[in-house]
Amino acid sequence: MVGAALADKLIDCGHEVMMGSRTADNENALKWAAAHESGSSGTFEDASKFGEVIINATAGDVSLAVLESAGRVNLAGKVLIDISNPIDHSGEVSPSLFVINTDSLGEQIQRAFPDTAVVKTLNTMNAQLMVDPSLVPGNHCVFIAGNDATAKSTVTNLLGEFGWTSDRVVDLGDITAARGTEAYLHLWLRIFGTLESAQFNIGIFTS
Amino acid sequence: MVGAALADKLIDCGHEVMMGSRTADNENALKWAAAHESGSSGTFEDASKFGEVIINATAGDVSLAVLESAGRVNLAGKVLIDISNPIDHSGEVSPSLFVINTDSLGEQIQRAFPDTAVVKTLNTMNAQLMVDPSLVPGNHCVFIAGNDATAKSTVTNLLGEFGWTSDRVVDLGDITAARGTEAYLHLWLRIFGTLESAQFNIGIFTS
Repeated sequence: MVGAALADKLIDCGHEVMMGSRTADNENALKWAAAHESGSSGTFEDASKFGEVIINATAGDVSLAVLESAGRVNLAGKVLIDISNPIDHSGEVSPSLFVINTDSLGEQIQRAFPDTAVVKTLNTMNAQLMVDPSLVPGNHCVFIAGNDATAKSTVTNLLGEFGWTSDRVVDLGDITAARGTEAYLHLWLRIFGTLESAQFNIGIFTS
Repeated sequence: MVGAALADKLIDCGHEVMMGSRTADNENALKWAAAHESGSSGTFEDASKFGEVIINATAGDVSLAVLESAGRVNLAGKVLIDISNPIDHSGEVSPSLFVINTDSLGEQIQRAFPDTAVVKTLNTMNAQLMVDPSLVPGNHCVFIAGNDATAKSTVTNLLGEFGWTSDRVVDLGDITAARGTEAYLHLWLRIFGTLESAQFNIGIFTS
């Protein structure tokens, strides 16, 4: 669902998009590709070969395995936008994170793929808002974190195409800042519980 | 420092305040009490006996021990405002939390003092902003979490005296929501690193 929202928006912005799945015969991906002139579908490996920029929109608990199956060599030298959250759904009523506090999924991915420029972003909001910030009025923001300044600049431009003007893109520094945006999920969940709606975002107020 | 900021503000609002310390001869507390007509000082036990509402403004890693020394019986039936954060300063460059993810310090305190109504609040900002939200313009917010509705109402009124109008007090539900506001420290630290100023706060934007 998150992947489709991003893929649709990227097509709208004039990009070519290949939707990657575990297998090349994924029905949803084939259907999506058939409906979009600039869209195609394939395996995770196909999509990673195809893309100049890769988006990891998989569930956090399979992200490392999926990226491994996509092929280290296919990801090397590329920008990887990581929008996943390390949600552990096992058991607890209130979900917890399987990595937090002294590490993050963003860092795990960056360590596993040292030749890829990982940029953590968009993981602090729901999919609709990611690709259309105007759904919620006001000067709310999106965070980016990553070790490579050029990659962050590429991602900032892409976010700009989505509607995130550069003044609303908050650069939190290197990839360790993913600890901040991932841990925020705990607060997001509670605000969601209070508002009973996922259509919200936070903004930063300064003096 | 945080305790003094809150105590000063409470005095300004017309309350009587006893500043508690480990020992009755704490120099800073004695000095503070001497400078304020409605102010006094004493041990943690004295302060807990004195207060109708107790504020835990101690460092997170000593909070449980301090509250234990304050005396379970002195806290029973009272509102305890917990503004602490479970920061573990040992070693790491970037501080981590000693409880997070599936538990929180707010919950630990509530479990340890079941006859006290713990309300977690104000732990998402610096001390100056806690007692003067107008230092930062705009509709930024303060969170409250706790199991007792009457206690949260008492705290909401007190926050109102500090300048937090009720529309800016976001009730996140029961004390387990302290997981959210405490984990947010990780994001707060990164935003602080980017802004190079602690004079900021977040607000919630909705559609």
